[in-house]
Amino acid sequence: MPASALATDLYQLTMMAGYFAAGRHHTTRATFELFVRRLPPGRSFLVAAGIEQALSLLELLHFEEPEVAWLARQPALARAPAGFFDYLRGFWFSGEVWAVREGTPVFANEPILRVTAPIAEAQLVETALLATINFQTSVASKAARVVIAADGRPVMEFGARRAHGLDAARCAARAAFLAGCAGTSLVEAAQRSSIPLAGTMAHSWVMSAVDEVTAFREYDAIFAEHAVLLLDTYDTIAAARAIVDHHMQPSAVRLDSGDLGGLSREVRAIFDEAGLTGTRIFASGDLDEHAIARLIASGAPIDGFGVGTSVVTSIDAPALGGVYKLVEVVDDGPGRLVMKTSAGKGTWPGRKQIWRVMENARAARDIIALHDEPQTAGSRPLLERVMVDGTRTSALLPLAHARVWCAERIAELPPDLRRIDRDASYDVQPSRGLTEAIRMAQGS
Amino acid sequence: MPASALATDLYQLTMMAGYFAAGRHHTTRATFELFVRRLPPGRSFLVAAGIEQALSLLELLHFEEPEVAWLARQPALARAPAGFFDYLRGFWFSGEVWAVREGTPVFANEPILRVTAPIAEAQLVETALLATINFQTSVASKAARVVIAADGRPVMEFGARRAHGLDAARCAARAAFLAGCAGTSLVEAAQRSSIPLAGTMAHSWVMSAVDEVTAFREYDAIFAEHAVLLLDTYDTIAAARAIVDHHMQPSAVRLDSGDLGGLSREVRAIFDEAGLTGTRIFASGDLDEHAIARLIASGAPIDGFGVGTSVVTSIDAPALGGVYKLVEVVDDGPGRLVMKTSAGKGTWPGRKQIWRVMENARAARDIIALHDEPQTAGSRPLLERVMVDGTRTSALLPLAHARVWCAERIAELPPDLRRIDRDASYDVQPSRGLTEAIRMAQGS
Repeated sequence: MPASALATDLYQLTMMAGYFAAGRHHTTRATFELFVRRLPPGRSFLVAAGIEQALSLLELLHFEEPEVAWLARQPALARAPAGFFDYLRGFWFSGEVWAVREGTPVFANEPILRVTAPIAEAQLVETALLATINFQTSVASKAARVVIAADGRPVMEFGARRAHGLDAARCAARAAFLAGCAGTSLVEAAQRSSIPLAGTMAHSWVMSAVDEVTAFREYDAIFAEHAVLLLDTYDTIAAARAIVDHHMQPSAVRLDSGDLGGLSREVRAIFDEAGLTGTRIFASGDLDEHAIARLIASGAPIDGFGVGTSVVTSIDAPALGGVYKLVEVVDDGPGRLVMKTSAGKGTWPGRKQIWRVMENARAARDIIALHDEPQTAGSRPLLERVMVDGTRTSALLPLAHARVWCAERIAELPPDLRRIDRDASYDVQPSRGLTEAIRMAQGS
Repeated sequence: MPASALATDLYQLTMMAGYFAAGRHHTTRATFELFVRRLPPGRSFLVAAGIEQALSLLELLHFEEPEVAWLARQPALARAPAGFFDYLRGFWFSGEVWAVREGTPVFANEPILRVTAPIAEAQLVETALLATINFQTSVASKAARVVIAADGRPVMEFGARRAHGLDAARCAARAAFLAGCAGTSLVEAAQRSSIPLAGTMAHSWVMSAVDEVTAFREYDAIFAEHAVLLLDTYDTIAAARAIVDHHMQPSAVRLDSGDLGGLSREVRAIFDEAGLTGTRIFASGDLDEHAIARLIASGAPIDGFGVGTSVVTSIDAPALGGVYKLVEVVDDGPGRLVMKTSAGKGTWPGRKQIWRVMENARAARDIIALHDEPQTAGSRPLLERVMVDGTRTSALLPLAHARVWCAERIAELPPDLRRIDRDASYDVQPSRGLTEAIRMAQGS
């Protein structure tokens, strides 16, 4: 994992130089919170993801000497104080971080992650934290919907070729598995994150053979129960009949184009009549949660789905508008809660905690409170301290455990939030203490 | 640049094992072409990008020993022939590649890149080639529209925080610059790809100071002509008046929220009245080509734009549906042209060349021909041979040169294609030879 401190916006560095020039780079401690102002249309909840990678970035963050030398030559930093570059040479992230656990459903205005650090450090990391968490949260949130739509049938993530590069593909595979997908086709993601591998065959396998039946036979001969035969290179129904006519017994077939509902019924009938009742039918081809829900509602005999583009790009909400906002500053003496008041872009002041109020083992509502307010009765806190003095406070949670955590947390949401045919809203309110802090900050 | 050969879909490896088992992995040579079946809505042309990175991936591609050992343990490959894993240990890409030059406008069905190699090699690289070229082409294509809309005013790319991870952010910054953006805020991209750096200040700089005027003064004192003051933390107009009242003379200011047209006019008037006629006004805040065009059409006195989300995610077309399709197979003797006929997903057979027919120094139409057909009169070929035996045939073109190439090629397109308010189509036809090949393949 490269963790160059240059993976940041220029203005973070110019502001750091400014804090340094004013002598405030380490005497001023700041708290920033990362949150989403509003959920995108088509999302009734978000699934927090990317936090593990974000913490790794913070732990490894540093400037290499050639990077510092390069920065010192940039016109934009030509007037930075001389000592600034030595400061960068010795830079490491020494802050405290609180975050929700990966896989936790979160809502608008809820801090997913909170950084308290010397202001120059907290500022530098904004870009990397946002790029990491915005993207992976958007993929996990989309994948959760697709998994809900599949209603228990396995969903395999096949989207690497449409992801925003190979690194995005790896992160998307991980986020999709976290949110309930059953496996990935991306070998590198499977290896790195211990995700089950899934794969079938491509049209080129069929096209490069002398004929389709030969292509099927050769594959079946090698892969036996792992062979999934792709039917739609030329004609899906003809391919299904050829399988029967040639007495092949594949464990599964894949349909990748055309009317998947109608074709699955025809193929099922052909197979069942020939006694191939155990041959499963997988479907793929530009599927999203709505297409999957329609297929299932129509009674299509499909045993599992392959999804790609829609999940790895979160195609209907491809950019999550997460922001990283200053909420508290401590120069000396008591902290100042700060608040931005731009039109439509205001922020809530102060370090916060999210309390999820449980009623009958179901999430009833969330309260966003100031960090040091007393616990709301019957609720659990969502933000945990995960890093102190730049070091993680606990071992990384295995992804398979996080996936179970995610499924359990989604299952306890109000049922309306798990509908994919219409958006539902969840009750999130500021606490009395936070409401008072907002009023005071507005009045100031 | 990591180039793990595991950055591929599982089925590429199972098919490779299948080719290996049949003894066809190197005796069968295959040609695959990477192209887009149709342009997304809102795109009258695409700008090819990602090719340099794709070629680097091909040159560096190999399996590390622990990767091979891991693969050999996977159930999906448990029945691969024993020699297959030794084959992977010695694997390198030995193929020939033809590609259009980065920055070239391309259209539906036109091969952006063409690989001819032993079939197992050509198959393995599909996922990485698609992930790289699909994404970067979509960003370059969107950026070209934004640059057209800005009509000569500089457009800075600020989108790292909304990109699909930091690697996607770096690639997006490069693709945006290729397509005409003037700079990036992402320091690492600027360093790696020699892109001009751009940056201003964040709201947190203002919020962390005692007051806004102090924040502006401190920044101005350090950065002088590089200081761009951000006006909208609390109230844009009040901030502009404060600048005048306190006799500051910033070189530029940035507006980031609210009615950018109206605010720019008010701020311009305040500055001009105070003699600050040289202070430029930059605008940002969820801008895309349409918002920029509206601002300019309304006469808003804005000197430059910052764009983020819309460009780095190509937000209205976040997944480009590029495919990589087998078009020719050579086992022994003459090649077989192959063609997939799935409903709505057919392909054109044979190795191809694109001829761009020029009339009066303007691109009039393109002809897609079989590779060995004679040149169409008055046309230039777009595909160049860029790799032979797995080695590049020419040095990498500096990005700044590719950017000029791109601007020149876009400028010679029919003017309708450069409209951003409505889609226009360009005349692309198969040659006589290709038409005949399609007919023959359909008949076969």
